[in-house]
Amino acid sequence: MHVGYLGPKGSFTHNIALKAFPDEELIPLGTITEVIKAYEEGDVSYAIVPVENAIEGPVLETSDYLFHQAHIETIAEIVQPIKQQLLATAQGKKIEKIFSHPQAIAQGKKYVLENYPDVIIEAMASTAYAARYVAEHPQANYAAIAPQAAADEYGLEIIAQDIHEIDNNYTRFWVLGPKAVPIDLKETDKKISLAFTLPDNLPGALYKALSVFAWRGIDLTKIESRPLKTVLGEYFFIIDFANHNEELVGFALEELTAIGIHYKILGKYTVYQLG
Amino acid sequence: MHVGYLGPKGSFTHNIALKAFPDEELIPLGTITEVIKAYEEGDVSYAIVPVENAIEGPVLETSDYLFHQAHIETIAEIVQPIKQQLLATAQGKKIEKIFSHPQAIAQGKKYVLENYPDVIIEAMASTAYAARYVAEHPQANYAAIAPQAAADEYGLEIIAQDIHEIDNNYTRFWVLGPKAVPIDLKETDKKISLAFTLPDNLPGALYKALSVFAWRGIDLTKIESRPLKTVLGEYFFIIDFANHNEELVGFALEELTAIGIHYKILGKYTVYQLG
Repeated sequence: MHVGYLGPKGSFTHNIALKAFPDEELIPLGTITEVIKAYEEGDVSYAIVPVENAIEGPVLETSDYLFHQAHIETIAEIVQPIKQQLLATAQGKKIEKIFSHPQAIAQGKKYVLENYPDVIIEAMASTAYAARYVAEHPQANYAAIAPQAAADEYGLEIIAQDIHEIDNNYTRFWVLGPKAVPIDLKETDKKISLAFTLPDNLPGALYKALSVFAWRGIDLTKIESRPLKTVLGEYFFIIDFANHNEELVGFALEELTAIGIHYKILGKYTVYQLG
Repeated sequence: MHVGYLGPKGSFTHNIALKAFPDEELIPLGTITEVIKAYEEGDVSYAIVPVENAIEGPVLETSDYLFHQAHIETIAEIVQPIKQQLLATAQGKKIEKIFSHPQAIAQGKKYVLENYPDVIIEAMASTAYAARYVAEHPQANYAAIAPQAAADEYGLEIIAQDIHEIDNNYTRFWVLGPKAVPIDLKETDKKISLAFTLPDNLPGALYKALSVFAWRGIDLTKIESRPLKTVLGEYFFIIDFANHNEELVGFALEELTAIGIHYKILGKYTVYQLG
């Protein structure tokens, strides 16, 4: 079975793929859109994409594609703590240049400024590309800020561990697929995500939509508003809520339809946590 | 008086600054953060930044800075239709390379592919930089996708007009300042924007927050959720609502406080529309 993921090898998404599908053939793809399309077109059986980061917020390429273009359901969510390492080809090297993705640079900047005040920092398209680049230039005095998985993938040494500034950084990843598969990770919750638009300019429409969940005590864990790409001030919403009582959730969804709100289920899924 | 704006000259924000403050000294700054900081530190008396685009959504650098770091109020909102022009140093030139900002490239791509199928397209940091670059290389067969204001600023010819694909594209700009000033543009509405966080993990807390507006019939024109940058699943919200009945709005805000929701007013302002 083929599983597509946001590459390259050594990325955070690759790590999720390795943990969720240890025995399958993993296919790295260049962009989130390519990953979702590969699944839509049947080139892969499952697909893994990032959906939200605790610091940066929702991954817009994922939400927009799943709402506007796809009819795809998430079958699992995997939450991964984001930890950044400083990697080089050998310990004890004099580091003159550090490569990474802009977000990882921001996360590791404090450590780098304190420990390598004279280093040149250069942005790259991803942390994994930065790690690969450093591995490909073993003679140069280069280092990369990247995850542990990139060190394993490209045979780099961790020259400084956990250099990220904020400890509580997590990313949520979605596994897209035809039906749930057993995943050997710690289960933490069951959730449903859905996207909806509101009837034209109805004052209080969002309030009514939320009321079907609120008065039933169904816990909302997330709400995201995104422009509909038609006119300013029209939005679609993505909400995540706890799926602890299927009957109650069923009534809530029926009532949503009854008050004229069209929704699209993005997934009913189990949430897993990586250690 | 000095007015800071997101530069360079010829940008959409520059056009807003020219229309709102035709007689003042306008200071272009390089990033949104620099514009807001210049106002905070008293280097400029007013500041103009983009806050939301109909297609791309909220400008995260603006929302995050105003929520997390600043105590600043918006005194006016100006809505500008986004129209893109193809600019070059002379009419009738053979165009071999087109420069622009990635968003403007996306907006003009259909026109360019149909009319210049062999052209090379290159991304730049802003449409105005692209226009300036084209003006600085009059001998080269270059063109830029940029607004009318950039043509005026850099003395370029419009070789194809309104090449943007989507007609209903608008951007909202905020004028930050100590108090409202007369602005000679068409008034379309009065609004209030506020940011709030919710008491810890209270199920239905967002619903309660919205209820103080909904049952009073106060029309919400926007809701944006952004991560609090602490842990996954904690958000702050920015809502915009109509300020048509000050007494009613006052009661709603009092009730918000009474139910334990802390808010920060981002502005009580008049909305203006550019033609």
